[in-house]
Amino acid sequence: MILIGERINAGFKDVKAAVINKDGDVIKEWAKKQTAAGATYLDVAIGTASAKPEDLCWMIDMVQSACDTPISIDINKPLLLKEAIKVCKKPPLVNSTPAIAAKMDEILPIVAEYNASIIGLVMNEEGSPKTVDKRIENAGILMSKAMDYGITPDRVFLDPIVMPLKFMQDQPKIIMQTVSQFTLFSDPPCHIVCGLSNASNGAVHKKLINRVLVAMMIAHGLDAAILDVCDEELVNTILTAELCMNRTLYADSFVEAFRKQG
Amino acid sequence: MILIGERINAGFKDVKAAVINKDGDVIKEWAKKQTAAGATYLDVAIGTASAKPEDLCWMIDMVQSACDTPISIDINKPLLLKEAIKVCKKPPLVNSTPAIAAKMDEILPIVAEYNASIIGLVMNEEGSPKTVDKRIENAGILMSKAMDYGITPDRVFLDPIVMPLKFMQDQPKIIMQTVSQFTLFSDPPCHIVCGLSNASNGAVHKKLINRVLVAMMIAHGLDAAILDVCDEELVNTILTAELCMNRTLYADSFVEAFRKQG
Repeated sequence: MILIGERINAGFKDVKAAVINKDGDVIKEWAKKQTAAGATYLDVAIGTASAKPEDLCWMIDMVQSACDTPISIDINKPLLLKEAIKVCKKPPLVNSTPAIAAKMDEILPIVAEYNASIIGLVMNEEGSPKTVDKRIENAGILMSKAMDYGITPDRVFLDPIVMPLKFMQDQPKIIMQTVSQFTLFSDPPCHIVCGLSNASNGAVHKKLINRVLVAMMIAHGLDAAILDVCDEELVNTILTAELCMNRTLYADSFVEAFRKQG
Repeated sequence: MILIGERINAGFKDVKAAVINKDGDVIKEWAKKQTAAGATYLDVAIGTASAKPEDLCWMIDMVQSACDTPISIDINKPLLLKEAIKVCKKPPLVNSTPAIAAKMDEILPIVAEYNASIIGLVMNEEGSPKTVDKRIENAGILMSKAMDYGITPDRVFLDPIVMPLKFMQDQPKIIMQTVSQFTLFSDPPCHIVCGLSNASNGAVHKKLINRVLVAMMIAHGLDAAILDVCDEELVNTILTAELCMNRTLYADSFVEAFRKQG
């Protein structure tokens, strides 16, 4: 499972304040903590905290000074992306592009040039689709456009767009069906990712919802998620679901073994 | 979700001793405790503790003196079943018959006569199959034989036979595929049940494995399980998975609301 740590996001107050005050320690702490928890990538999102490329580059520098976990650049503005991707020491994951031609034609050449990977959101000019079919259609557009730019399926992460369970209760089942179909696009398949925390937006039992839904999505083929990697129960759930999918080998101490990885 | 409490089973030492010493309090306590935890049925298994029909009937009497939760008679001996089913105050669930003609022809007429339901194990003379196809074949045999006896799909619980993850790690994925196909047999579909605890047999992280696998199986259509209904985290997982399948309606307090049910 590819675990993308969500925490270095200026949507969180402490990170926003850190960006504004150039307090690198906050960023470094989250970089270390999420890396220790098992993150494969660290998502870095500047959001509305600043529109300056140098501030986003500073965030990435801080992360890279604390650990060598690759970056997920959470930006859809090509100008910022162009600067940020230059400072990445390892090929990053670019988060994200929708299935909109003008946007893909700006983002994907940059992804290709830096041997990066891309998260493709299965939405278009009309917004986030509610049906399986429309999601699959948008996924097809993303996949073929990526191929046009020489980005192979192993560098494409399709995101079915998880909606909050509380407000759109029909969506998880539709998402699971969508994920199942994503696995059929190519062989070997592309990656399938989701922004997990969105599922429990506004809910009381957030952590419970996150960990149950991720197990159910893994049962249909999900192999990556942007999540709270410091939630131990959530990661334990994922480790167990991976075992059940026969992706990792059983050991009595499979949970403890993961925590020992350096 | 149909929750079948597994605890009144003479495979457990306290229950075995209770049967031998005719200590009704142990049985009654488990009946009350599992009912309070949300059990839909209470499985009653005498196992090797006694071969006498009157002992099994005594167990059922004890349960029925403590609560009015219907019984799952865990026996595949027709002679014992015939006596036990007579003392059940509500139509029980009969656990179980394999897809073996001679066995089905003994068990199913009794099930039909008492308007009971039946768990059909998708195994035959050759034992438990390892593949999806063989399981589906056996399920088809069970379903059509049940129809022969006038037992409609809503009274048939297909059991794909869950194997221990530790020893047969390829099985959970095969089980999930099997469950998916079971949902297609009829419309409305039959029930799909499993003996959940078997999945974590011999494992260290038993509870973790049980709750993750049940979420993954619900994602494919499971709607019943024989389980440790007193494991609160397990039941919370099931409640959440049911929400994600859109089977129950979201409320912020969906966990607490279940606990308040009488």
